[in-house]
Amino acid sequence: MTLRLAIVGYGNLGKSLEKEIEKRQDMALTAIYSRRNLDHEKYRPLKDIAGECQFDVALLALGSYSDITEYAPLFTHLNTVDSFDTHAKIAEYKSSLNATKKDSLAIISTGWDPGLLSLARGVFSVGGAECVTLWGEGVSQGHSNAIRQIRGVIDAVQFTCPKPNAEESVLNGERHSGKLHDRICYVACVSSDNERIAQEIVNMPNYFKDYDTKVIFTSPQEVRELKMRTAHRGQVISVGDGFSTKTDVKLDCNTDYTAKIMLDFAAAIPRLIADGYRGAMDVYDIPLRYLADSKLI
Amino acid sequence: MTLRLAIVGYGNLGKSLEKEIEKRQDMALTAIYSRRNLDHEKYRPLKDIAGECQFDVALLALGSYSDITEYAPLFTHLNTVDSFDTHAKIAEYKSSLNATKKDSLAIISTGWDPGLLSLARGVFSVGGAECVTLWGEGVSQGHSNAIRQIRGVIDAVQFTCPKPNAEESVLNGERHSGKLHDRICYVACVSSDNERIAQEIVNMPNYFKDYDTKVIFTSPQEVRELKMRTAHRGQVISVGDGFSTKTDVKLDCNTDYTAKIMLDFAAAIPRLIADGYRGAMDVYDIPLRYLADSKLI
Repeated sequence: MTLRLAIVGYGNLGKSLEKEIEKRQDMALTAIYSRRNLDHEKYRPLKDIAGECQFDVALLALGSYSDITEYAPLFTHLNTVDSFDTHAKIAEYKSSLNATKKDSLAIISTGWDPGLLSLARGVFSVGGAECVTLWGEGVSQGHSNAIRQIRGVIDAVQFTCPKPNAEESVLNGERHSGKLHDRICYVACVSSDNERIAQEIVNMPNYFKDYDTKVIFTSPQEVRELKMRTAHRGQVISVGDGFSTKTDVKLDCNTDYTAKIMLDFAAAIPRLIADGYRGAMDVYDIPLRYLADSKLI
Repeated sequence: MTLRLAIVGYGNLGKSLEKEIEKRQDMALTAIYSRRNLDHEKYRPLKDIAGECQFDVALLALGSYSDITEYAPLFTHLNTVDSFDTHAKIAEYKSSLNATKKDSLAIISTGWDPGLLSLARGVFSVGGAECVTLWGEGVSQGHSNAIRQIRGVIDAVQFTCPKPNAEESVLNGERHSGKLHDRICYVACVSSDNERIAQEIVNMPNYFKDYDTKVIFTSPQEVRELKMRTAHRGQVISVGDGFSTKTDVKLDCNTDYTAKIMLDFAAAIPRLIADGYRGAMDVYDIPLRYLADSKLI
């Protein structure tokens, strides 16, 4: 049976979702919902979504920082998959969303991190290990988007980079992510209000406050060029009593990989619904047999 | 609350379980069941186990090849955790065990592989990747034990070794485990029946048949010495469209790490039981929140 999908939001992630759905025999794109008026044959105004039912799962490709938490609770009757990526707020978001989902299912915070690397951290904490994650070098969409919400910012892109000695630091006991990474922000802004914008960035809680953050003001054109660098990397290192593990994920395009992962979670929804699951689920709530072939055991 | 545990079987894995339970504040060892008469204050004859209820979970530390599938279905009323490791027979074992577990829970095939690496394969197949596992260099307890079941074998130990070019072969498309590994068997036997024993080993289905297997006959003393090499390693490599992942697990002692993992699965049993789970579950059936702190998401 073909899974009918809607995309909500048509930025980088929305476009990757559209492209990845094209590649799948078992899926069809029925509509793209946006607040903006899109020149696209599948465009529908976002305000109409609540009354519509021509799709099985809505893929939320909105920005995490405000849009997902604002819109997702309105989609009471829709099954959704999102990639909400503010680690510190996932539990709160899940709890508030869960209250709105009596007869539908929301799978939250999928993607490669949070998502697959969350699962890797969980798996390799078993046996009493401590887990540390190194991200990058690569663009963080969530962090870039958070900067773009600041008044006066035209465009921005944020590169997360493990510090040169990060892996050694982990093995020597360093556990704080802020001591293992640098955050480099390239920002184009309208005015000469650079100092206020830089301060808003470096002091933004959850995103930048506990990190060594460098803000570089540049032209919109250079930001655009830097955004073309879509490759990313994530490493989960766990250290236990008599064992250690390292998981290394390398990807060519952040949003393409996120889209592929979101589609596999969306494919699980009909089976989860059939088995009685409702409400908001995160990746730790879903038995892996809904996502992976049990032959891999 | 203290989780009360029984160990069933007192070979290498049973002894590792005893040692690891000692280290845990939240667990207590109530009995060690064995077919052999053990000189141990906690020894109880295995035949008495079905009538006993002084423990919450029985940890099955029997050999996979015949003992687990023979004994586990007899433990109708006991919650059990095992590390059954014949990959090709896990589904069949689960299905037959499930039928015997109406009011108890069996978690099967835990350990690092099958177990944690099964989970890694499942997680990193998401997004459409193909997964390949490289084992070693290290002793396979399951394969060593399988050799020891052959008539005329006094003792044996089997080292699994990735072929020197294994990782490159995977990236070039090789998927068959037998083309990526060598199996080196050190065997001490009673008689001059070497040729028959070598043939039985290399032709053993599931274990050796599809591998380059080398059988080296040696003294029981050399086998004993080789068994002291307890380190092992497992790598899961996945290759997808625009991404690749590598998970690398290194451990000092196979049975100690397996024991730690079994204990974490045992710790999940009271919560699984409270939530209504019964029957036989494999690692793909258990939501990760029963095993890992959701802060790791």
